[in-house]
Formats: sequence, C-alpha cells, structure tokens
Amino acid sequence: MRDFLPADKARRERVLAVIRERYRAHGFDEIETPVVEEHGRLHAGIGGDNEKLSYSILRRGLDADGIRAAADDPAALSDLGLRYDLTVPLARFYATNRGQLPTVFRSIQIGPVWRAERPQKGRYRQFVQCDIDIMGDDSARAEAELIVASLDTIDALGLEGGVVRVNDRRALDWMLDSFGFAEDERPGVLITIDKLDKVGADGVAEELRGRGVTPAAVDAFEAFLKRPKTLEYNPYGERQIRKALPEGAPDEIVAHLVSLGEAVTAARSDAGEPPLIYDPFLVRGMGYYTGTIFELAHPSVDYSLGGGGRYDGMIGRFLGQQVPAVGFSIGFERIVDLVAELEAESAQAVVLVHDADVPVAELLAHKAALLREGDVARVRLERRPKNLKALLERASADGYTGFAALRAGDAVGDLEVKPLS
Amino acid sequence: MRDFLPADKARRERVLAVIRERYRAHGFDEIETPVVEEHGRLHAGIGGDNEKLSYSILRRGLDADGIRAAADDPAALSDLGLRYDLTVPLARFYATNRGQLPTVFRSIQIGPVWRAERPQKGRYRQFVQCDIDIMGDDSARAEAELIVASLDTIDALGLEGGVVRVNDRRALDWMLDSFGFAEDERPGVLITIDKLDKVGADGVAEELRGRGVTPAAVDAFEAFLKRPKTLEYNPYGERQIRKALPEGAPDEIVAHLVSLGEAVTAARSDAGEPPLIYDPFLVRGMGYYTGTIFELAHPSVDYSLGGGGRYDGMIGRFLGQQVPAVGFSIGFERIVDLVAELEAESAQAVVLVHDADVPVAELLAHKAALLREGDVARVRLERRPKNLKALLERASADGYTGFAALRAGDAVGDLEVKPLS
Repeated sequence: MRDFLPADKARRERVLAVIRERYRAHGFDEIETPVVEEHGRLHAGIGGDNEKLSYSILRRGLDADGIRAAADDPAALSDLGLRYDLTVPLARFYATNRGQLPTVFRSIQIGPVWRAERPQKGRYRQFVQCDIDIMGDDSARAEAELIVASLDTIDALGLEGGVVRVNDRRALDWMLDSFGFAEDERPGVLITIDKLDKVGADGVAEELRGRGVTPAAVDAFEAFLKRPKTLEYNPYGERQIRKALPEGAPDEIVAHLVSLGEAVTAARSDAGEPPLIYDPFLVRGMGYYTGTIFELAHPSVDYSLGGGGRYDGMIGRFLGQQVPAVGFSIGFERIVDLVAELEAESAQAVVLVHDADVPVAELLAHKAALLREGDVARVRLERRPKNLKALLERASADGYTGFAALRAGDAVGDLEVKPLS
Repeated sequence: MRDFLPADKARRERVLAVIRERYRAHGFDEIETPVVEEHGRLHAGIGGDNEKLSYSILRRGLDADGIRAAADDPAALSDLGLRYDLTVPLARFYATNRGQLPTVFRSIQIGPVWRAERPQKGRYRQFVQCDIDIMGDDSARAEAELIVASLDTIDALGLEGGVVRVNDRRALDWMLDSFGFAEDERPGVLITIDKLDKVGADGVAEELRGRGVTPAAVDAFEAFLKRPKTLEYNPYGERQIRKALPEGAPDEIVAHLVSLGEAVTAARSDAGEPPLIYDPFLVRGMGYYTGTIFELAHPSVDYSLGGGGRYDGMIGRFLGQQVPAVGFSIGFERIVDLVAELEAESAQAVVLVHDADVPVAELLAHKAALLREGDVARVRLERRPKNLKALLERASADGYTGFAALRAGDAVGDLEVKPLS
C-alpha cells in the first residue's frame, strides 16, 4: 500500500474531479458505502478469486477459548472484511435502500478496495475503482449510456481514441452449446477461451483437450476458430456480428448488441471512428455476468483500462427479487498514470518569503491580505533560507506562480508579487 | 457504518471541496496514507483509548496450529489494522518520506478512520476527519496559520462566528506543579480537570480527593479555582493570560500564547470579534500533546467542531529524531450537518423524458446533443411514466432544473428545455 505525496495526490484528485464531473453530467448520482462489509457477504461465492484475496477483520472480544475453538472453524475469527470490489457492496446497498431509490437508478461509486495481492508493478493492495452502474433497466439503453459516459470521461482526461470491445455472455454460452460442450463443461472452457489472445487457436484447442472435455465439441470449436477471418475484428454491425458467430445465433441477443452499437455510434457521431469492436471471444473473468460484457482499450497501452457487464442475477441474492443491473468500472490506477498534466489552476499561487525577524502577527496579516485579493488562490509562508533560488524552484515545481519578499514593518497590502519561473 | 444516498453524498462532497480549497489556499498540501497500518504501530501507546477501539485485520495464512497458538498470544492473530486517527499515520508518513518533503511541511489529510464505538447519535464506526498539520516549525507561526486556516474554512462553509479556546499543556503542567501535585499524579489530575465544565470546582475537588492525590495540592488547587473570576473567560491578551494563571507563569509559554493571539487577530482583522479565548483548564484528551492545545467552538452547538495541538514528541518515535509538529482536525461529521445548503450548481441539469418507443440510438443522440450545449451540465434519461408530475418533482429534488419531452423521430438539437420548479 502506498503513500501519496503532494504532487501525486493533487494529480489524483484532479483526475477524480474530472471523472466525477463527467459521470454526473451523464445523469449518474454518487453514493458511498462503508469500506467494511459483513464477512459472510464477502464470501458468498460472488466475487470469484477475489474472495480469496480479501482482508478479514478480527472479531472483537474473542477470548482464549474462542480463539482455540476457531482452530476448527476459522470463519469464527472474523465477522467483517474489507471490500474487494465495489459491485458486491452496490448490490447490498441497492437491497438495503431500494425504497429511497428511483426505479432506474444510475449510481457512481468511487473509492478504494483491497486485495491481498503479491505486490508487483501495477498491482496494489489498496487501489481506487471508479464504477458506474445502472439498476432497473434491462434494455440496451443502459449499456449504451454506460459506454458513452465512460468514453466521454476518458476523452475529457485527454485519452481520446478509446475503444470498447463488446460481447454477450449469452452469445458465448449459446455458441459453446452449439459446438456440443456440456453445460457443466462451459465455465472451464471459458477460462481457456480467455487465453485466446495469448495462445491462439492451437493453444486453446490443446488446453481444452488436456481438460478432457467432450472431444467432438473441441474439434468443432477448433474448426470454427480456424475459419478464415474468424479472429479478425470488423466494423461493428449486425452483418458482422452474425458473420462472427456460428449460423443461427438467437435474434434477441444479436438485436441487443446491434441496438447498443447504434446508440453508441449516434451519441459519438462527432468523435470520429466508431468506438466499438464486437469480440465473440471476450470472456471477462467474473462468474456473475449474465449478458453484455465489455472492456475498454486504448491504443497507448496493451492492457484494458476498465470494463464491466450485465449481472442481472446479483441483486436478487440480496433482495430476494430480481433487478437487472449493468456496470462499467474504470481502473483508476491504470488511468491516472496515462493522463498528461491536466490544465493547471489559473489563479495565482504566491510564496511569501519573510525574514526571520518579522513578527508572526505581521506574517499572518500579509498572508490574509493576499488571500483577500481575488486572483490569489494560495499563499505559502516561507522563512528566507540561505539558498533562495532552491526554495523558489521547489515552489514552482509545487505549482506556485509568484513570490513576494517580506521584511519587518512592510505595509500590509503593499507587497509586490513577482512571477516565478 | 452508514450508506450515503445521492443527496447526502453530494452534500458531503460539496463540503469537502470547500474544506480542501480553503486549506490549499492557506498553503497546505494534501497527502494520502493507506487506511491500513501495521498493527504494532497502531498499538504503540500513542493513541490512548482509541487504540482499544481499533479494528485489527486477521493475519493471512494462519493454519489451525497457528490459531491455537494465538490463544496465548492474541497479537499473533493480526499484523495490520484500520487507522483510528490520521495523526499516527501522518507521523509514520513523515518519517517514511522526509527526504522528499520541505523543511516546513504543511499537510492536509482528509479521509475515513474507524473505531469500534457503540453506535449512538453522532458517533459512527467509520467517520471522516479533516486534518491540517505543520511539521518542522516550533514557532507560534505554525499554530496561528492552523487556527486562521480553520476559522477561514468554517467561515467559507457559512459557519461564521467560530471561536477557538486555547491553552498550553506546559502551562497546565507548570500550574499543577506549582500547586504541589507530584509528576506521576498529574495525568490523572488532568482527566479530572477535563470535567470542570460539567462538575464545577466542587466536583473537581471532590473527585481529586477521592483519587487520593496529595491533599495539600488539592486544597491549593480548589482555592485557586474558587478565586473570584477564575472561571470567567476574558478577552485574549497577555494581561488576561497572566491573571488567569497563578503568579509567576513562565515567560516563554506566555509569550508563545500572546504571539499566536496577536497573529490570529491580525489575520482576522476584518472578521469582527477576536476569535480566541484563553482557557487555562482546557485539557484535550490525548496524551501526546506537548504544548499549545486548542478546540473549535461555535455558538450554534454545545460540542466542539474540532481541535488539536502541538505534539513535538511523536514524529521522533518513528524517525528517531525530534521534529516539532502541530495539528488541527475538523470533525467532518459534526460540521456537515450544520452547513446550510451550499450554493447549487449554476449550470442547467436536464431530465429528458422519452416515450417507450423511441429507439435507443435516438435517445443517446439527443442526450449527447444536450451535453454539447455549453450551459447544460447534466442530462438524465427517463422513460415517460404514468405519473409524470411525480417524476419531475423527484428530479427537482435531485437538483435538476429543466426537462424536455422526447418523441420518436424528433430532430436532434431541436428539443425545447422547459424550466422545472
């Protein structure tokens, strides 16, 4: 877990402010849930592998007997845990507060989550996620609004050119069924397909054979993967979607995909190239997806910047009543390093360098007077050091734009602010 | 721990934005530390009673033998914990990152902390603190900057009229010594003095006698408390400070208090009444204070809105080298409920009510066109319900200012936005 020094923290806050403003512009409303949830809820089998990485909080008031008893029942050691994502807390939030929420609820959740990852470049134990979700709308309007809001947000961060790969879990399932994979084989097959980009058609077929799934299905699937052009991605549209799938794909699924494509294109009519790719082999790891899934790519990097999908079954687990839901999460830690300097604040920031003998009351009176000037946003007092140049360079690096020198007895309101640089 | 729904969350974010902006204006820089710190650091005896309320995180990878062994050594169950304040993490941060920080470092830390409090009105298990601290400056300049920045911040929130009660732990200690309390009796005596406001001079003397501390010291102290005017607080100044203390108070302490008073008054020259009260019996709970202490009061409430003090000994515990430090914490949860509605956003927020048969692509094209208009900050799509009036009332409560009705085939860019109200 990391400390953030002033320059990093300021950059993070500026990026978060842009994300928040754009999400809100698109009609989403921010909520907040506690970072701590009930242990049982975090281990309900919804979070996949992330559950294993979750931090548990020690139950309070355990005595020696209670601890010994927990040797046979380790779950008794913990009643709470740190959330490992924002989706499980959102589903719980919706179930708790439904009576106060509109029928179609568009939420923003921005906050840290924790996973006990082995530390490595780009993986942190505490990291920020920025999620938008729409609950109560099962139409393609929901997916389209999420995708457009997300693309608009990364545009606003100076990351134009984002592309969203789209698929539908139902299409994947139908396809695997059509090749002859048994229902209980399909989750394992999906894990293998997820590696298609890395290992290619041969690698996938080999791994599936090693898994011992229905051999005829593997043969059929391999033949399909090796069709000409199967692994080329074409402009997004009904014809291309039908061509990318085996014959006879269900009309309803295709129509949903086509509709969201048309909507995204219409909303982004002046943003140049169509920002969607239909990828029939996009899987996304989480087991809870039930429909459309998507992943946000950007030409400047080879990893995804975010993604999400439809999870119509999850809220029902908390509420006892099905509510359709779909979400899009931006990986904040991945985004923040890509964003070039955002426009600096336009108001003046002044370093007030004073001699050591200036009484404190004079210092504070000068500082207050400067802050009363309309165009001065920040004032920092600094005792004059031996090396003034180094101090001014540091201040400039910290975003200060002007400086003034102060001696004992100088009249308040009379300081000359000189530009720094 | 609480969920925050959109109206509450928006209000909290607006208040935080004002606090952040004002703190920054006064030359402070925001940092961020992880919410999780090492268990041993959180139980080093710095945090007083709060340590007992801290949440511990279960050590990962404990097997049945490890759990059984922990029955005799419960500390082995946990290696990390949730922070219970922002001061201990700040001292650790400073020790870790000192090489990259300026000699005098003014920090902002805003974030949640956790304590396993019994839930009651105004006490939460997760709550936000807003701290500013100055490290590396042992002069009254530091205290004065903190107090002025804090008063300016609550002014900016519409809470003008804040008053800061000031004392110095060294003055308290000198006073108790002068009455004849032994050094090891003084921490207990302070706990009793902290109740003076509630139980009065008689109550304090009675409790001290019950504690069995030096009887002659209790008599002397009681006589002092019962002097005429001892418990009246007068305008802040050298004469009043000397009068409020027994004869012979150390010049250095009085000079420090006077200097910070002059500085705060100079900086607040146009804000009316002097905002300081010298309270020789202000204690503040934490054991780590070493000098000036202060507490922020407001005429609208009978509890404090924040406070802080000088803790010159703490950073040395982490760094192995003494660094003077002083901090002021605003109790965000207490402030946020007092703040009247902040000025609403000035740009338009539009609800776009559409018939059920409008194709999704048309919906998103209209939404995008509205968002391209300069004065439209937010657009929310809503399917036309049976009860349009209820929907519009809800939107208005959510801060939406206009609405437009959309039928299939309406030309993009041609919608008439009507005011909501």
